[in-house]
Amino acid sequence: MFKTKLLIGTVLLAASLGTMAAEWQALPGKAPEPADNPTTPAKVELGKMLYHDTRLSANGVLSCNSCHNVMNGGEDNRSGSIGVKDQRGGRSAPTVWNSAFNSVQFWDGRAPSLEAQAKGPVTNPIEMGMKSWDDVVARLKAMPGYQAAFTAAFGPDSISADNAAKAIAAYERTLITPNSPYDKYVGGDKSALTEQQARGMQTFADVGCVSCHSGPAFNGPTLPEGTGFYQKFPANDNGALEAMYNFSADLGRQAETKNAADAHLFKVPTLRNIALTAPYFHNGKVQNLEDAVKIMAKLQLNKDLTAEQSADIVAFLNGLTGEFPKIEMPRLPAYANKAFPAE
Amino acid sequence: MFKTKLLIGTVLLAASLGTMAAEWQALPGKAPEPADNPTTPAKVELGKMLYHDTRLSANGVLSCNSCHNVMNGGEDNRSGSIGVKDQRGGRSAPTVWNSAFNSVQFWDGRAPSLEAQAKGPVTNPIEMGMKSWDDVVARLKAMPGYQAAFTAAFGPDSISADNAAKAIAAYERTLITPNSPYDKYVGGDKSALTEQQARGMQTFADVGCVSCHSGPAFNGPTLPEGTGFYQKFPANDNGALEAMYNFSADLGRQAETKNAADAHLFKVPTLRNIALTAPYFHNGKVQNLEDAVKIMAKLQLNKDLTAEQSADIVAFLNGLTGEFPKIEMPRLPAYANKAFPAE
Ligand code: HEC
Ligand code: HEC
Ligand code: HEC
Ligand code: HEC
Ligand SMILES: [Ca+2]
Ligand SMILES: [Ca+2]
Repeated sequence: MFKTKLLIGTVLLAASLGTMAAEWQALPGKAPEPADNPTTPAKVELGKMLYHDTRLSANGVLSCNSCHNVMNGGEDNRSGSIGVKDQRGGRSAPTVWNSAFNSVQFWDGRAPSLEAQAKGPVTNPIEMGMKSWDDVVARLKAMPGYQAAFTAAFGPDSISADNAAKAIAAYERTLITPNSPYDKYVGGDKSALTEQQARGMQTFADVGCVSCHSGPAFNGPTLPEGTGFYQKFPANDNGALEAMYNFSADLGRQAETKNAADAHLFKVPTLRNIALTAPYFHNGKVQNLEDAVKIMAKLQLNKDLTAEQSADIVAFLNGLTGEFPKIEMPRLPAYANKAFPAE
Repeated sequence: MFKTKLLIGTVLLAASLGTMAAEWQALPGKAPEPADNPTTPAKVELGKMLYHDTRLSANGVLSCNSCHNVMNGGEDNRSGSIGVKDQRGGRSAPTVWNSAFNSVQFWDGRAPSLEAQAKGPVTNPIEMGMKSWDDVVARLKAMPGYQAAFTAAFGPDSISADNAAKAIAAYERTLITPNSPYDKYVGGDKSALTEQQARGMQTFADVGCVSCHSGPAFNGPTLPEGTGFYQKFPANDNGALEAMYNFSADLGRQAETKNAADAHLFKVPTLRNIALTAPYFHNGKVQNLEDAVKIMAKLQLNKDLTAEQSADIVAFLNGLTGEFPKIEMPRLPAYANKAFPAE
């Protein structure tokens, strides 16, 4: 199963190398939805409440938004996220913006859908630290406001881990950022990118970035949900860069599958809003975008970019910052006249 | 100076005891503004950004909103707030909703205005833990988006602690909740309160709550900003309650003024939205509203309420939950292509 996925990725990569440059795609205005969880306003509203509610974490300090802040780039701009009790995680939080366009979730793609992903962090001991989803469900059931919001989204008596995850995923599917300068340019407005940005776009294609970062989200070809597009990182050995950034310490997909063929395979991440999501890479060790671009060229394509080339590509990548939808803060339900139980 | 304030409080208390019951006041639709900081849309927008920006705390995890969550009751529903590095504070966070109607800030009234208050938590080592406001200003200056927002609010090159505090205070002055059932009732809509709530309102006046919790915000008479309305708490000794709740451990205003006459003086807090702000009192030791009401009657008025009386008062207090304005999430500026400096 995992092998098949890898093969799909590899085949597509080979096929795409020559043709991709012509296939610039704008970001759709709507994210794909799975058949068993159509997006509805009531689900989105509930999902927004859950996503922003710190009471889904053990000590009530962290919400999803703590590590994936939708008020800016959709992550926390850290190398390792800070979980409950100030614990540090080993991977950098990816942006939640446009995660709806990922065919798999996490750096190693171990979650096949947003729904599957959403159940993880809540009970992860170094993230939100709840002992179990039963405990989360008990907390939610104690709040009449959540009873009502679940009823509106899923019918009466529907508070459950599965429905919470469905609602969060529905909210995430609204977190998309179309209409970047790049999208306008591709749509025909040739003034939307500066001259340097347009040049950078061409360079991005010419040097081969687009062989991996293709498709509307620059995270590879559009694949069915659950099917990942993985690549080896670093693809080329480089002692100096390894000494500086330690990229190979993380086994990537192999840590999940225990399959040697999966060593250092990572999902190709989106480049949308990349200017807002420093630091870069799975371990967040690279502080700025220009370094990240040079490192990619060296490690993935074995190329040394000129100063002009890397500056142009950075300028282009800045043109991938989209329009962020206005989001009204949710009203979060109260325990009826009672304090938060986790003291 | 502090003595004068105390006297003002005491005089007004005596004067008000007989007449207050007739003076039910609705919450104004607009909060008072100091002459040197008129509220403008640009200040409010900037203040909202700062209020919700976790990068105003040392480790980038906490914002004002962490302890004063405007998505619910405006506080954190804890006895002691959780600051940076999981440190616990000794007092419970009061609600930020309608704090614009407090003539002084903090349980002991030690800040004379919202502007003065707003500078405190950022550099408080157990709250947001920044070493200095200079460090905060340096962080803000590194973000072009903040340069622009300060310019819009205060003119060019205006990033400073004072202006940050002014902007936060301007935002807080928009955090008001008029049109509660009580306000509608007082405005003439006699169906806005239930029969029990209307009875509770009368009981609230008759037993004497209103001698302290008077005025539109139920936090005492309307006084000039900087002039506090303080009361002794507990006003009457009670060994059993003291053993349970330890209210006397906190010296209140005396800890600030070092004046023995200020021992155990606390600002009379607002009762607006009180159903959403459990636990209760300066140390947050009381978990539910009914207990809080009985304790107040016993300790402040030396009265034992009947079960009916306390239930009626609780019902009335539930009628003080107002209408919460819709708030759009701010867009928070990014460091240009760079990671958050506090790693
Ligand atoms: C303490 C920090 C933290 C919290 C809280 C947190 N996350 Fe994450 N999130 C991460 C990290 C770190 C990763 C990457 C982990 C990995 O790839 O192994 C991640 C990955 C993800 C991804 C995958 C994105 C991608 O491109 O692969 C999504 C979606 C996501 N989180 C959503 C959520 C939701 C929804 C919540 C709340 C229910 C949440 N996160 C809570 C840190 C956090
Ligand atoms: C052979 C595949 C491949 C090629 C070619 C490639 N990338 Fe990547 N890119 C990846 C993978 C896989 C990652 C994730 C690596 C990791 O952090 O584990 C990545 C990560 C990135 C990141 C960091 C994303 C983040 O959120 O941290 C940037 C920026 C980036 N690539 C830009 C480029 C540019 C620019 C080029 C061309 C110069 C390029 N890539 C070429 C596969 C590739
Ligand atoms: C770690 C928790 C925490 C953080 C962060 C925090 N506060 Fe507070 N806040 C408190 C506590 C606790 C008190 C009461 C302290 C006291 O009275 O001695 C308080 C008091 C206040 C008051 C006085 C309200 C009243 O009725 O007296 C206001 C207003 C306020 N905070 C606003 C803010 C703003 C603005 C920020 C951010 C700049 C902020 N707080 C950050 C915990 C916090
Ligand atoms: C003599 C003055 C006085 C009287 C009379 C009084 N209160 Fe209070 N009230 C206070 C003070 C002072 C506090 C803050 C005490 C503290 O926590 O330090 C307070 C706190 C409260 C609180 C908790 C507020 C919070 O946010 O935690 C409630 C609820 C309350 N009062 C309700 C009542 C009711 C109901 C009555 C009548 C039965 C009443 N009060 C009578 C002075 C008074
Ligand atoms: Ca990042
Ligand atoms: Ca409280």
